[in-house]
Amino acid sequence: MSQAQVSDDEIFGGHEGGKLSVAATRPITQARDLSIAYTPGVAKVSRAIAEDAALAKRYTWADRLVAVVSDGTAVLGLGDIGASASLPVMEGKSVLFKTFAGLDSIPLVLDTTDVDEIVETLVRLRPSFGAVNLEDVSAPRCFELEDKLKAALDCPVMHDDQHGTAIVVLAALRGANMVLERAIADQRVVISGAGAAGVACTRILQAAGVGDVTVLDSKGIIHSGRDGLNPIKEQLAETSNSSGLRGGLAEALAGADVFIGLSSSTIEESLLATMADDSIVFALSNPDPEVHPDVAARYASVVATGRSDFPNQINNVLAFPGVFKGALDSGARSITENMKLAAADAIASVAADKLAADHIVPSPLDPRVAPEVAAAVAKAAESDGVTA
Amino acid sequence: MSQAQVSDDEIFGGHEGGKLSVAATRPITQARDLSIAYTPGVAKVSRAIAEDAALAKRYTWADRLVAVVSDGTAVLGLGDIGASASLPVMEGKSVLFKTFAGLDSIPLVLDTTDVDEIVETLVRLRPSFGAVNLEDVSAPRCFELEDKLKAALDCPVMHDDQHGTAIVVLAALRGANMVLERAIADQRVVISGAGAAGVACTRILQAAGVGDVTVLDSKGIIHSGRDGLNPIKEQLAETSNSSGLRGGLAEALAGADVFIGLSSSTIEESLLATMADDSIVFALSNPDPEVHPDVAARYASVVATGRSDFPNQINNVLAFPGVFKGALDSGARSITENMKLAAADAIASVAADKLAADHIVPSPLDPRVAPEVAAAVAKAAESDGVTA
Repeated sequence: MSQAQVSDDEIFGGHEGGKLSVAATRPITQARDLSIAYTPGVAKVSRAIAEDAALAKRYTWADRLVAVVSDGTAVLGLGDIGASASLPVMEGKSVLFKTFAGLDSIPLVLDTTDVDEIVETLVRLRPSFGAVNLEDVSAPRCFELEDKLKAALDCPVMHDDQHGTAIVVLAALRGANMVLERAIADQRVVISGAGAAGVACTRILQAAGVGDVTVLDSKGIIHSGRDGLNPIKEQLAETSNSSGLRGGLAEALAGADVFIGLSSSTIEESLLATMADDSIVFALSNPDPEVHPDVAARYASVVATGRSDFPNQINNVLAFPGVFKGALDSGARSITENMKLAAADAIASVAADKLAADHIVPSPLDPRVAPEVAAAVAKAAESDGVTA
Repeated sequence: MSQAQVSDDEIFGGHEGGKLSVAATRPITQARDLSIAYTPGVAKVSRAIAEDAALAKRYTWADRLVAVVSDGTAVLGLGDIGASASLPVMEGKSVLFKTFAGLDSIPLVLDTTDVDEIVETLVRLRPSFGAVNLEDVSAPRCFELEDKLKAALDCPVMHDDQHGTAIVVLAALRGANMVLERAIADQRVVISGAGAAGVACTRILQAAGVGDVTVLDSKGIIHSGRDGLNPIKEQLAETSNSSGLRGGLAEALAGADVFIGLSSSTIEESLLATMADDSIVFALSNPDPEVHPDVAARYASVVATGRSDFPNQINNVLAFPGVFKGALDSGARSITENMKLAAADAIASVAADKLAADHIVPSPLDPRVAPEVAAAVAKAAESDGVTA
């Protein structure tokens, strides 16, 4: 699985001039092409849309265009580095949308961190795109921003750092459970990190039937009655930690079945030893996992990381291209919980054909994933009745 | 010059699914590509930009990206049909940017017609693009919007309906004058229409040395002392009509050398007969010129229209791709009057090699135009000292 180290020259060379370009779907080679794509022909198309707004879906690219939106406040592990510095990540996201799902997208990076201003900006731009992929927005602002955007826009909106991660974590857990022949409902899961990914993972695992999830932030286990919780953590305290645990990682991990690391912390080897038999460890901090996978493997039966140089890479790219493709293809006006659950199942089902402890999820480059996810998401959208 | 009528089927077929797509400049085929374009490699690029903001120019696409912006208030001859219905025109514009100048651009259509809200929106999105092509914004709002955007953004901003048209009109007048061996300074020019194009044409012709320009709106000749002029027309009244004419088209055209039609009106044949010898008639209303070119040719020595099915098509596409390419290539922070004049001269010089009364401007499809315009514009930007 290892690959030669990528040099700085290769990285910067691969970014020279940016990573995206815009192309015409039909070439302009003669006056006739110009008369069709531009004046006078285009006037008929504009007039038709003015008379029947629904025709914009058919005759513009907006309905199949994802806006990849960031304010640059939580970029990868780099933190609040601003909109301009976040743009290479958003361009990369657009590259992945295209590569894996054939979807067109444009990065829109915003020089404001005010949630209401971001919402207002996207509401004004609404006729320009068909869906919003929120990216690298800091917690807890990201929760408020996503909620307000979903309320303000009649199109699919998803904060990928939350739900993309959650979908792939659930897929990986389903894969691991297939290998171990375990039932998700019986497992006690510990999630380290109550940021964007931690909160969304908690929610999707609960929606998938995990009864006992314990979440920790930098101050330890989140439980009701703990002082100084923000509204999101307050809600987590009420809905999670059904065993009423108090304390830190040691208290949380003793006897736990699953550990999911989503903070930039480390976990001591001795604590892994206290987990239940056949435990599952997802050490997803990047670039440095909470525990080296070789160390984790001494205690756990299944280990995954976010890195491409170890087995079982839990990478959002398994989810977001197919999720948006399925949402747009089906004309979904929103992305429902069932659509996310369906995406996770689809990812797990692609891995199932050569399931093993070191193959609980497909490779991020597996071309089968996005179409399978898109089909499952579209089907769920239809059965949820959110399609146009 | 004629071409078979383009059918509705062809037009709508040519718009199915929209006219644009986004592509990756470098393909993703293996894990290594992913490590460069996305995590973990991209983090180094983002960090570098966070440390030195100037690197965004080099490592993102923003610096070579034109935002094609409209609020849909004055779309072609269709008027205020709204943002969504304007999108096919903006997509067409992006197709032309790519086809003629190799420039990437994205349509941003706005669901607000409030000038300050449009400015605010683009200020927030500033890190996402490198220049703004304003399009199809109604007068007189377009003047205020362009002025405010130029003040608020440190990048090239141009309202194409104003300046693109003005540049090509000046180029065509230079071409006609070369054919007729006339000097621009000696000519009396009549412009019918005081909207976006009329105002900008007046200004560029004055900047090019035309001493006597008379402008008419729907109420007749604009002159100082006329009641109810808006601030833009007030300014026109002060700076134009040096002969102090009063009245309508009849009074304006008697003895005039050049007629430029930029309104959706018609002009009577008998009035053309009153113009000076060797007159020049640009009947630019689309799709119906102010006078049929065959009729105009009975009186004028050079006739041009905006239509592709007659000689001398005065089409903005001769200007805007090269203007933006030159501005972005040179790192210009604005588009100056000299850059526009240089663009007009460059267009005229391309036509010069087979100059004739029916060839005063190059064909819109002439591939030499945009590079020549870009080079001239970049040179003017440098000599004007507006480059970064």
